Amino acid sequence: MNCDICRYVKEADNPVFESKYWIVFLADEQAYLGRCFVTLKRHCGDIAKLDNKEWLELLGVIRKLENAVKEAFGPSLFNWTCLMNLAYQNNPPNPHIHWHFMPRYSHEVNFTGMTFVDLEFGSHYAREKERPRKVSGRIKNEIVGAIRKRLKTA
Amino acid sequence: MNCDICRYVKEADNPVFESKYWIVFLADEQAYLGRCFVTLKRHCGDIAKLDNKEWLELLGVIRKLENAVKEAFGPSLFNWTCLMNLAYQNNPPNPHIHWHFMPRYSHEVNFTGMTFVDLEFGSHYAREKERPRKVSGRIKNEIVGAIRKRLKTA
Repeated sequence: MNCDICRYVKEADNPVFESKYWIVFLADEQAYLGRCFVTLKRHCGDIAKLDNKEWLELLGVIRKLENAVKEAFGPSLFNWTCLMNLAYQNNPPNPHIHWHFMPRYSHEVNFTGMTFVDLEFGSHYAREKERPRKVSGRIKNEIVGAIRKRLKTA
Repeated sequence: MNCDICRYVKEADNPVFESKYWIVFLADEQAYLGRCFVTLKRHCGDIAKLDNKEWLELLGVIRKLENAVKEAFGPSLFNWTCLMNLAYQNNPPNPHIHWHFMPRYSHEVNFTGMTFVDLEFGSHYAREKERPRKVSGRIKNEIVGAIRKRLKTA
């Protein structure tokens, strides 16, 4: 079946990094500076069907990404979610596992001349539609670069 | 430091089940029938600091819980989130890892004379405050019982 996420994985356009089973992309929406998607490379729609190797590698990816973003921008904590709701707007649904990674900030961050403020700190994140903040391709590249240069080899 | 979640774990009041490192409680809010918390038994506030054994056991807990809830109530998918935002309303914050488990339904479910409808199916879940549905202790026990009797030993 046609899967947009599989296509996105295959194109691998400027990922922050990738491991054997997972690939990390910066989100277009940067209301939470450093927001990323952590996507399974193979097509699978249910966490319960991940095998142990994939799951264990995910923990390594989480550690690596959290550490780098902490060093780059100093967030206070991270929200992780795996939802896949949109896939169920299609019939039949064709979900593909991806994690939403949202750094959360108790303080303003200035980066590349922009100010990022986490208005919901201490509370639930706002959905993209509630507080959209698309950044330009140039700013996106700079954010990716700032994270990438803090990545430690696992 | 004082931790409400540690106290909750220690009391272990009617958990759905527990494993060596994790304990599963049914949430008071049941707008999404079968909503649970999957809580780490030891006090730790950052997923990146979980050890491999704890992480691997979590996958087993996810499989066990998803399978049982699927058999009990027939949800279409599951949303998993690890947020810990509220802990950051305190200074200093004292987060304790817990996962929110939200079964999502394309169809109404009738259980114990009540009708459960997932008004947001195919979209982001509503936060508890947006659509509260507290159930009585008796109904909660029946939901726990329905899940518990479908649990397979791992």
